[in-house]
Amino acid sequence: MTDLHVEDRLAVQEAIARYAHAFDTGDVAGFVDVFTEDGIFEAVLVDQPDQRAVFQGHAELRRFAEATMREDVHVLHHLAGVMFDSTAVEAPTSRATVLVTKQLPDGPAISTHGTYLDRWRRTSGGWRLAHRRYVALGYGAAHRSRRAPRH
Amino acid sequence: MTDLHVEDRLAVQEAIARYAHAFDTGDVAGFVDVFTEDGIFEAVLVDQPDQRAVFQGHAELRRFAEATMREDVHVLHHLAGVMFDSTAVEAPTSRATVLVTKQLPDGPAISTHGTYLDRWRRTSGGWRLAHRRYVALGYGAAHRSRRAPRH
Amino acid sequence: MTDLHVEDRLAVQEAIARYAHAFDTGDVAGFVDVFTEDGIFEAVLVDQPDQRAVFQGHAELRRFAEATMREDVHVLHHLAGVMFDSTAVEAPTSRATVLVTKQLPDGPAISTHGTYLDRWRRTSGGWRLAHRRYVALGYGAAHRSRRAPRH
Repeated sequence: MTDLHVEDRLAVQEAIARYAHAFDTGDVAGFVDVFTEDGIFEAVLVDQPDQRAVFQGHAELRRFAEATMREDVHVLHHLAGVMFDSTAVEAPTSRATVLVTKQLPDGPAISTHGTYLDRWRRTSGGWRLAHRRYVALGYGAAHRSRRAPRH
Repeated sequence: MTDLHVEDRLAVQEAIARYAHAFDTGDVAGFVDVFTEDGIFEAVLVDQPDQRAVFQGHAELRRFAEATMREDVHVLHHLAGVMFDSTAVEAPTSRATVLVTKQLPDGPAISTHGTYLDRWRRTSGGWRLAHRRYVALGYGAAHRSRRAPRH
Repeated sequence: MTDLHVEDRLAVQEAIARYAHAFDTGDVAGFVDVFTEDGIFEAVLVDQPDQRAVFQGHAELRRFAEATMREDVHVLHHLAGVMFDSTAVEAPTSRATVLVTKQLPDGPAISTHGTYLDRWRRTSGGWRLAHRRYVALGYGAAHRSRRAPRH
């Protein structure tokens, strides 16, 4: 077991940012590509760890992205506070804070906020998410408001 | 064409942060210094790319900063999610998420949110912004509220 | 006087993130451990630098953390825009933007926002905060709302 190099740490930070920009620009292929082929995205509420939404593998992740981005247009994922819980090169884990804002007719509003708990895997194409768990503190009215489709 | 070193990536990240702290402390000279001599700052709304506000060169940027900071006191630029679209050393490009909060009489409010699309140039004084394009998702009531001048 | 290495800069960035995650998960020991044994945390309002709340040393920091985390549950510290004002290895100083969100019954709200002004010291356990000064732009209604204790 060796440790992550500086380049690896920066690459993981960039992959976290890439997720945000892919989602926020409606780039479904870019979003899916942040994950490994068998990658998992799951979402839970902080007080209800047993009620999960889970999407595993590129096909499910693509359907999730297509459905979500169709309704969540004009959102931004503000991802900060990246910290590694493990820098073991086989399966580094990190966390980051999440704030999602959305443009409503009367201005910007917070849609949801929480923490990403991530496990990474190195692939031939670079670092990918093997597992992302979103622990949400909660959601706001902006999360439920529907906008016209992007196209 | 060679690639950016780790030091360059961190320097660009710091320059992005320096822009925020200069603006938020009313440091006009520091704000202008983030740009190259012929640097451009432009702002567009995400759905109206043809209606631009553009400021080019240190003299225009200084006038922009003086006018804006006189009215926008007690604001914070929260800049996160830095990602490089190109790491070509001649003209690296990056993006970052933007959230601007403002202190109003009844508490903090979101003034605007969007994305910075940046093109960088290396100068004798370090990395500078050759071109920053702010793509705003929108603005809130806090953006239009006027405060007393700082001084 | 020598300069900070890339590894040091990343370690300081991580310590900034660790503060946030320790606070937000109610990890009192982890929070205290971000500071040196004689470390200081102080908070001021931007327009009232003379009215300070000050906590010095691990014992006081622990009492502060216990009291605060008992009331401030379901908060998130979004820390971004890290920039070094001094990279002198004996006492590097940095700043970062702060946004604290809180989950209220009707959704997420901004509790406070401002800037951390930090002075660091290298210890046998890594980089620690010798002095953190929080300059708050202000607080919102969410800051004063009380929640049920975590336990």
